[in-house]
Amino acid sequence: MSDGYPDDLRALVDAELARLSFSPGPSTAGLEQAMRYSLLAGGKRIRPVLALATARAVGVDPASVLPAAAAVELIHTYSLIHDDLPAMDDDELRRGRPTAHVRYGEGVAILSGDGLFAEAVRLFCEQPGKPARVLAALRELTAATGVDGMVGGQYVDITQEDVDGEGLRELHGLKTGRLIEASVGLVLTLEGLGEPETIPYRKFASELGVLFQIVDDILDVTGSDEQLGKPRGSDERHGKLTYVSLYGLERARDLAAESHVRATEALSAADGDAADLRRVADYIFTRQE
Amino acid sequence: MSDGYPDDLRALVDAELARLSFSPGPSTAGLEQAMRYSLLAGGKRIRPVLALATARAVGVDPASVLPAAAAVELIHTYSLIHDDLPAMDDDELRRGRPTAHVRYGEGVAILSGDGLFAEAVRLFCEQPGKPARVLAALRELTAATGVDGMVGGQYVDITQEDVDGEGLRELHGLKTGRLIEASVGLVLTLEGLGEPETIPYRKFASELGVLFQIVDDILDVTGSDEQLGKPRGSDERHGKLTYVSLYGLERARDLAAESHVRATEALSAADGDAADLRRVADYIFTRQE
Repeated sequence: MSDGYPDDLRALVDAELARLSFSPGPSTAGLEQAMRYSLLAGGKRIRPVLALATARAVGVDPASVLPAAAAVELIHTYSLIHDDLPAMDDDELRRGRPTAHVRYGEGVAILSGDGLFAEAVRLFCEQPGKPARVLAALRELTAATGVDGMVGGQYVDITQEDVDGEGLRELHGLKTGRLIEASVGLVLTLEGLGEPETIPYRKFASELGVLFQIVDDILDVTGSDEQLGKPRGSDERHGKLTYVSLYGLERARDLAAESHVRATEALSAADGDAADLRRVADYIFTRQE
Repeated sequence: MSDGYPDDLRALVDAELARLSFSPGPSTAGLEQAMRYSLLAGGKRIRPVLALATARAVGVDPASVLPAAAAVELIHTYSLIHDDLPAMDDDELRRGRPTAHVRYGEGVAILSGDGLFAEAVRLFCEQPGKPARVLAALRELTAATGVDGMVGGQYVDITQEDVDGEGLRELHGLKTGRLIEASVGLVLTLEGLGEPETIPYRKFASELGVLFQIVDDILDVTGSDEQLGKPRGSDERHGKLTYVSLYGLERARDLAAESHVRATEALSAADGDAADLRRVADYIFTRQE
């Protein structure tokens, strides 16, 4: 196991997010406040940290991809706000605080998600680099966010009643996996890497999405309310099929360990210094929150 | 007055929208269906037609900007779906049919809006042209869609209780005007026009946003339910300040006429053949639906 989470990269992300401003005047200041309430609620910033760690692995300054990385976190935050809504998962707590709609009302919560998405794309358009690559990377990110990605996964989550093991993998692949993959992939695209070079990183990212979800399902059963920042057991109350409900806790833990091995093995074929990517994988495997 | 609406351009837009597909497989086919329900509900396609008419005015083939123009309509449609939600305007009819949340439920309606936004950006990234210009145009569009634009305007609309005349102009400028301006502006940016050349078109587009809103407020009072596709008088029921409630019907009609004159006068300074843009302005001024 590598030692610790790449907190230097997380600090870069947090500073970038904190300096963002959205509202040009007083009439929309309350909307910006609601957006910042959700955006600056903390968290490990796994997705943008993955983007920065990928930059470091392929030999470029992590700070150079900060606009794109921050855009990913804005999109992730927007998805959490909308997922928490009464019409979706109806969750009242997130990271130990009232969810956006509890704090600001449903209408403002929906709009703060919409606003974060729009501002994410605007920010991404300001990512330095060859314009053709920036466009290709943005296309990759928004494809991962749309019907064949995050939004599609959430649709399957709230509408399908009989999900089997294969359906569960597809659902998680869309809802969680695609954005995690894009966090790594968009940096490879921004840097214009040839396809053979990208294979280890893409394989790693794909496996990381699976690992993240298995651990998430385990923590929903074993974590404490305080660690999770929300009531434990919400999956069961929502009647959701999870890796734990499907395979049992012990087998789910084995699956997580196998997935962790596959993720780190994928990286061993990478040319660059993938130590920080490995640290993120270790954190995801061992996290308690 | 010019003669008729540029239906050839509208036909191009409708064909482009109809051929779009979003879902890669059966699990998200229902989401695509909900998205298409709202997207293909008809309408004059004013925003993408403005984009195509701008292309024609500056001497390029309107079909060459179809991806960008269609993206604008996807964004407009997403905004209508979210505006109609119970937590927002709580409208049950749109273009004579049940609104998305009445037809598919709130959760799927929210997601169909989110999906349309993501797919709009993805589509825009496929707009042919110099990548730097495509990026700049997309930045312009998403800025018009975010906090200093459409989403910010909707926020002001649902939260501010005491709006005066100036506040009304700001609200409409953000909520409606910015997207109409971007529909014209993004084509100027895509084509790389020098700033002096763009001034007449941008002035026209800005005035057109005002005209659109005044006429909208008048029709909410004078139109028939059937023409509007929704119950008349919804502004008054929502307690909204409008040009009619603020100035009275007669003065609002005068304001519309003055705005129409200013819009078409702005075009007279344009170099290109702005006949189709003029036709759209005439339609907006005289429309009954």
